[in-house]
Amino acid sequence: MARKPELDDFRVPYFDTKKIEKFALADFDPSAKPFSTGSKEGDRDRLSQIGAKLDALQECLHAQQLQRVLLVLQGMDTSGKDGTVRAVFHEVDPLGLRIVPFKAPTANELAHDFLWRVHAQAPSAGELTIFNRSHYEDVLVPVVLGQLDNDAREQRYRQIRGFEALLAETGTTIIKCMLHISKDEQRGRLQARIDDPTRHWKFDVSDLEARKQWDQYQAAYHDALMATSTPYAPWYVIPANSKTHRNVMVAELLLRTFEGLKLEYPPAKESLKGVKVE
Amino acid sequence: MARKPELDDFRVPYFDTKKIEKFALADFDPSAKPFSTGSKEGDRDRLSQIGAKLDALQECLHAQQLQRVLLVLQGMDTSGKDGTVRAVFHEVDPLGLRIVPFKAPTANELAHDFLWRVHAQAPSAGELTIFNRSHYEDVLVPVVLGQLDNDAREQRYRQIRGFEALLAETGTTIIKCMLHISKDEQRGRLQARIDDPTRHWKFDVSDLEARKQWDQYQAAYHDALMATSTPYAPWYVIPANSKTHRNVMVAELLLRTFEGLKLEYPPAKESLKGVKVE
Repeated sequence: MARKPELDDFRVPYFDTKKIEKFALADFDPSAKPFSTGSKEGDRDRLSQIGAKLDALQECLHAQQLQRVLLVLQGMDTSGKDGTVRAVFHEVDPLGLRIVPFKAPTANELAHDFLWRVHAQAPSAGELTIFNRSHYEDVLVPVVLGQLDNDAREQRYRQIRGFEALLAETGTTIIKCMLHISKDEQRGRLQARIDDPTRHWKFDVSDLEARKQWDQYQAAYHDALMATSTPYAPWYVIPANSKTHRNVMVAELLLRTFEGLKLEYPPAKESLKGVKVE
Repeated sequence: MARKPELDDFRVPYFDTKKIEKFALADFDPSAKPFSTGSKEGDRDRLSQIGAKLDALQECLHAQQLQRVLLVLQGMDTSGKDGTVRAVFHEVDPLGLRIVPFKAPTANELAHDFLWRVHAQAPSAGELTIFNRSHYEDVLVPVVLGQLDNDAREQRYRQIRGFEALLAETGTTIIKCMLHISKDEQRGRLQARIDDPTRHWKFDVSDLEARKQWDQYQAAYHDALMATSTPYAPWYVIPANSKTHRNVMVAELLLRTFEGLKLEYPPAKESLKGVKVE
């Protein structure tokens, strides 16, 4: 009988392990649903259960004002980054969340190093921050467009590892999810956007250019994941052709992460004991 | 038969009207429930209905990337600013919201004018931003503590009107809500926090000091509301002893505001017409 899949089966091997582990992004089936309950309704129920737990844990994170959590979401166009945020965090108090969408850098941002604008958005004590796209765009787009040579790319990977180590060592728990869809699935999702004029605002003709370089992007993802999955900032590959599976799996990962923080409410204040409000 | 209450009955008269209108904060009953459905369950249903509408309207605001909306929440300790955010925006996509809690200013913030840190957090195109406390703290706390003389206070009122006019004239729709609770209601809420040690983290002994100056704070609120309610940034008094009424009333106000924006999705892109994704 096949072993039940575990979240760590989808973790990208750590960059700094002595023994080189086998990893190929292409080995992961985007249509797989290893953490699905078996039905969309079941998945939604599970998501709702996890959401309630995350809400309680996040409140405790906020009360403690000590630890920080950073979730990085990456994936090809239409892979469901926005949809994941919407679904997974539906139950979580908006007060405790900060969502940071990274778009094409501004002139001022480009006048700094590529991690400058990212560092400024790092979570503060008690905060759960979600990066919708991230500094990883800077080792994907310019690589595919041939604007970064191998040395410059390796240098950025090293800079990213250093940056993420800094965040981790100073109290931030980081998890990174690559929402993995197939080229066929993307075709359907792009076509649906084109066929519905009310959704054209989500679409730019240049999105089709990136699709033409699908294989190059997959290769760039493969390299970046391999070079930057670390014990302090692991990457997970999320099979994402099924939206409800994608949501449940990201939620399960986040739940495990929060449970691992051993969160506790701050102790009662002695100074408040027996106080009567007048 | 009494006239049905309207939202504008709770609007603070505009500062710049020629005719001085009568206004007294104390005339508003914090226990009133003018926009309640009559039951807590009914209020929750109504809130859920409005939430779904706000979610759709907010998506359109985001798609349009043109207008901006700013909701300012003020009120005494325990008046329910956090609870309002949680309840009213439960149905709204977290991607479209930005919540900015203003705490005691840092040394660097104090080294600038009092609107500097506030301006930096103003909503951007397509964004709905909620200020949880705001620049109004700077015409409440220092006034009660006697750190601002009359001239300095009037100067700040004028500066606030100028600042809000700038935001409004450049595309931001502003509404400001004062969550109005009674001193008795606050006693119960503070005592509940003291009696539950797991909620001590929300509480500081200094909160009791502000309570001792309840009347001075009410007077400071009265003056500030009178001096800064304008056609481009009106203040509303929200009777807030009932939490479900408070939530429904803020939601109704926001819904009316969004409906007034005449939001429309951007037109379909000609360049996408008939495009087939390969």
